Amino acid sequence: MSLSPLLESLVEAFQGLPGVGRKTAQRLAMHVLERDREGGRRLAGALEAAIENVGHCRRCRNLTEDELCPICANPRRDREVLCVVETPADVMAIEQAGIFSGVYHVLMGHLSPLDGIGPEELGLGLLAERLAGESVREVILATNSTVEGEATAQYISEMAGDAGVEVTRIAYGIPMGGELEYVDGNTLTHAFNGRRAVGDR
Amino acid sequence: MSLSPLLESLVEAFQGLPGVGRKTAQRLAMHVLERDREGGRRLAGALEAAIENVGHCRRCRNLTEDELCPICANPRRDREVLCVVETPADVMAIEQAGIFSGVYHVLMGHLSPLDGIGPEELGLGLLAERLAGESVREVILATNSTVEGEATAQYISEMAGDAGVEVTRIAYGIPMGGELEYVDGNTLTHAFNGRRAVGDR
Repeated sequence: MSLSPLLESLVEAFQGLPGVGRKTAQRLAMHVLERDREGGRRLAGALEAAIENVGHCRRCRNLTEDELCPICANPRRDREVLCVVETPADVMAIEQAGIFSGVYHVLMGHLSPLDGIGPEELGLGLLAERLAGESVREVILATNSTVEGEATAQYISEMAGDAGVEVTRIAYGIPMGGELEYVDGNTLTHAFNGRRAVGDR
Repeated sequence: MSLSPLLESLVEAFQGLPGVGRKTAQRLAMHVLERDREGGRRLAGALEAAIENVGHCRRCRNLTEDELCPICANPRRDREVLCVVETPADVMAIEQAGIFSGVYHVLMGHLSPLDGIGPEELGLGLLAERLAGESVREVILATNSTVEGEATAQYISEMAGDAGVEVTRIAYGIPMGGELEYVDGNTLTHAFNGRRAVGDR
């Protein structure tokens, strides 16, 4: 090998990140060592601090180092509308769109009996407590449109229905700016099944 | 902000890496925290160890934590052929091609008088010492084909010529598998100027 041991370890550690191959890992390692050691130190420190301290929000299971995540702790969020998502990344995507002012419940996965992931692993007990104890008016299901995501949505919609809470599912269809001819058949099926009368909003 | 402070710091630290935007930084942070805390710890440790300990090879200026880099320390490398490159990344690219068995001299940049980078900053004194003290037979100039890279190559070729060492420049032209019609004019110019008689090797 032409790399010194510490350099080789650094390249291999970068390769552990998703979407980072050997070439990119080398480029990142070189960048840090040649041009930005201060940034590299900051990244190492941020990784250690986050890994040591970040856990799950006591109320919604989103990632946070505090008891409550910033969204649950924000008194201006609408506690009556609860959006159920699979991962913290989904929360970020919705937050960045800036269209939702309610609170979340993060499943940290989806029902997948073959992998041993049942209602217990998704913390659905906690969700049931929230539906019973908080004054939730509407549950918006925003799980993925995969088989597992749909099954999870179905399960939760029954739970919420039993608790007497209104349940909605976000719309699936042609993405804005998407062209019909390039959209897959499954999405087209959803788009047709979800069609609405013109004038309806 | 909807991210907890430690998460936000981690995302910002990832954004400091080249080619990593906000979305990718979020994906990396989520990946580490949700799925691979062990890998994250390894990356933090590798960054700290490399940043603390990696310096420059005493002989060729390549990155290494030892006195000599693995290439200079390898007795099977041909000390009579010395390839001059701009960066450690160039060394990696050449090593990965596996076509060169000599040693390197890493400038860590190129001549750029406007930025205050002269022969001193590129350690050309060290290179002169090597040309005088080691039994170098050929210097291969592999600096980039930019204006600064060419100027640097020119400067070093005069230095090496004065020291009575043969100097060559790697070939610039159409990349293998590249199609003529998509190649830029500058490259075409190099390809035409560098043409050779058929049968010549």
